[in-house]
Amino acid sequence: MNISERLGIKFYKEQVEQFLIDKGKQTEEALHQYLGQLQCPGPGLIEAMEYSLFAGGKRLRPALVLGSAEIFEGDIPKVMPSACAIEMIHTYSLIHDDLPALDNDDFRRGKPTLHKVYGEAVALLAGDGLLTLAFELLASTGNADVVAEVARSAGVNGMVGGQYLDIRAEGQKITIETLQEIHRKKTGALICASLRCGALLSNASSEGLYAITEYGKHLGLAFQIVDDILNVTGDEKTLGKPVGSDKEHNKSTYPAILGLAQAQELALEQTHKAIRALDCLGEKAEIFRQLAIYMLSRNR
Amino acid sequence: MNISERLGIKFYKEQVEQFLIDKGKQTEEALHQYLGQLQCPGPGLIEAMEYSLFAGGKRLRPALVLGSAEIFEGDIPKVMPSACAIEMIHTYSLIHDDLPALDNDDFRRGKPTLHKVYGEAVALLAGDGLLTLAFELLASTGNADVVAEVARSAGVNGMVGGQYLDIRAEGQKITIETLQEIHRKKTGALICASLRCGALLSNASSEGLYAITEYGKHLGLAFQIVDDILNVTGDEKTLGKPVGSDKEHNKSTYPAILGLAQAQELALEQTHKAIRALDCLGEKAEIFRQLAIYMLSRNR
Repeated sequence: MNISERLGIKFYKEQVEQFLIDKGKQTEEALHQYLGQLQCPGPGLIEAMEYSLFAGGKRLRPALVLGSAEIFEGDIPKVMPSACAIEMIHTYSLIHDDLPALDNDDFRRGKPTLHKVYGEAVALLAGDGLLTLAFELLASTGNADVVAEVARSAGVNGMVGGQYLDIRAEGQKITIETLQEIHRKKTGALICASLRCGALLSNASSEGLYAITEYGKHLGLAFQIVDDILNVTGDEKTLGKPVGSDKEHNKSTYPAILGLAQAQELALEQTHKAIRALDCLGEKAEIFRQLAIYMLSRNR
Repeated sequence: MNISERLGIKFYKEQVEQFLIDKGKQTEEALHQYLGQLQCPGPGLIEAMEYSLFAGGKRLRPALVLGSAEIFEGDIPKVMPSACAIEMIHTYSLIHDDLPALDNDDFRRGKPTLHKVYGEAVALLAGDGLLTLAFELLASTGNADVVAEVARSAGVNGMVGGQYLDIRAEGQKITIETLQEIHRKKTGALICASLRCGALLSNASSEGLYAITEYGKHLGLAFQIVDDILNVTGDEKTLGKPVGSDKEHNKSTYPAILGLAQAQELALEQTHKAIRALDCLGEKAEIFRQLAIYMLSRNR
């Protein structure tokens, strides 16, 4: 399937790669700075947080915060704390998900998971520490709306709730609607919040805020469908985690419910909707159109 | 030892009990309201959060928030979200502490711990959910300083850091200074933050804020020493948890390091300092003087 042709948009892969590299670098510099400022409560805890924070993540969420701020002509230093905060929340969720009490995963991005290296107690606390530090950083923006936005997206009506629904659904036969609800909460909410934080901190108009939110909803859904597809068709080495683990955990996935071909169609459709949502934002939103195609055609 | 006599202050026990009952009731009503407003992501998660939130806690921290606001003539509805938020953070910390990865406790306040009833996965997520909901509530005050205050006190330089130091110290011989650092972080920081939130949201003067902070530091320390003492001398039924568990877990405690008599002296000394810190606040801080004596003479 030539994605670019089917969407009717020329795809500049290198442009997106450069965008992600740039935003990733900026984010990692800031993350190092924030972590470096912490008074260490004894060796080990900060190292554990760093182990997971710098384990080769794609930095998608910070790139969405920073990219959104650029679209709305915001100030990058002003939004950087929330970009880092959201990456910390994403990281804490992976640490807790990997614990034996939940997914019991031994590898993540090709490296042993945190609890495999530092033990379960430290992994639990490193996750708690990252989540709490995230809110300290968000508070430093001085904007309580941004704190509320992220808290809602990460909480029981967002990520934590999605994670809960996900474990309840294991081994159950669920509908495509339930699967979509799980993913809207589990990954979609924080992706949306990333875009909205960048916009809110850049004083976006309500029309702009609406557009970027719609983009986020469809991008988040497409992102998860592709994740599910890669868990079936991907290359273990490229992915950095075992292929087929969803099936092994008896997880409902898009390919499992819809079949592979229809899941790919749905991902394309959601990508198309994401791109269309940006229409009113014109040329300055081009990088996000490209990013949507990139996310659809990624192999990890 | 007649505590009241040694401190030179008449002790009105019933007055403190009534204060705690009143603040506890107000807090529990508000907690029920906040939890009731959540869209349930499927049965079980909210129930699990409620199981721990309404498991018979003393509601000390909310009482400190609300009492502090009263001293500084603040508006109770305005501070209630942060009172509830801090109780949620306290509760999440107990849930995660009790998990097999940390203390592996089967009972808390005379009831089976959350993971014993709902399983480890739900307990982990219920804790994450409470911590995140707390920050949503704190953000609803519109005051980013209050969010930052609580995040600092609960994070790696506060509660999480103290918990980390605590597990590292298990089975080690530590000095009284290290023990004090652990407790300053593990329990003292959130107690201080409770008092400071009430004051900050009531526009306390910097002198008032300083006084209430000093009170909190000494109260928090006295509180922990008494906790340690009760773990040796207390009655299992009254406490609702096994006596002697600290010794069993090989934990350093005040009685273990100082001996019982000197630990009791230190608790008295810290209570005295807490009371003296309130001098500049005059008569309106009387309930907090009484509370300090009450906390010293409690049996659970």
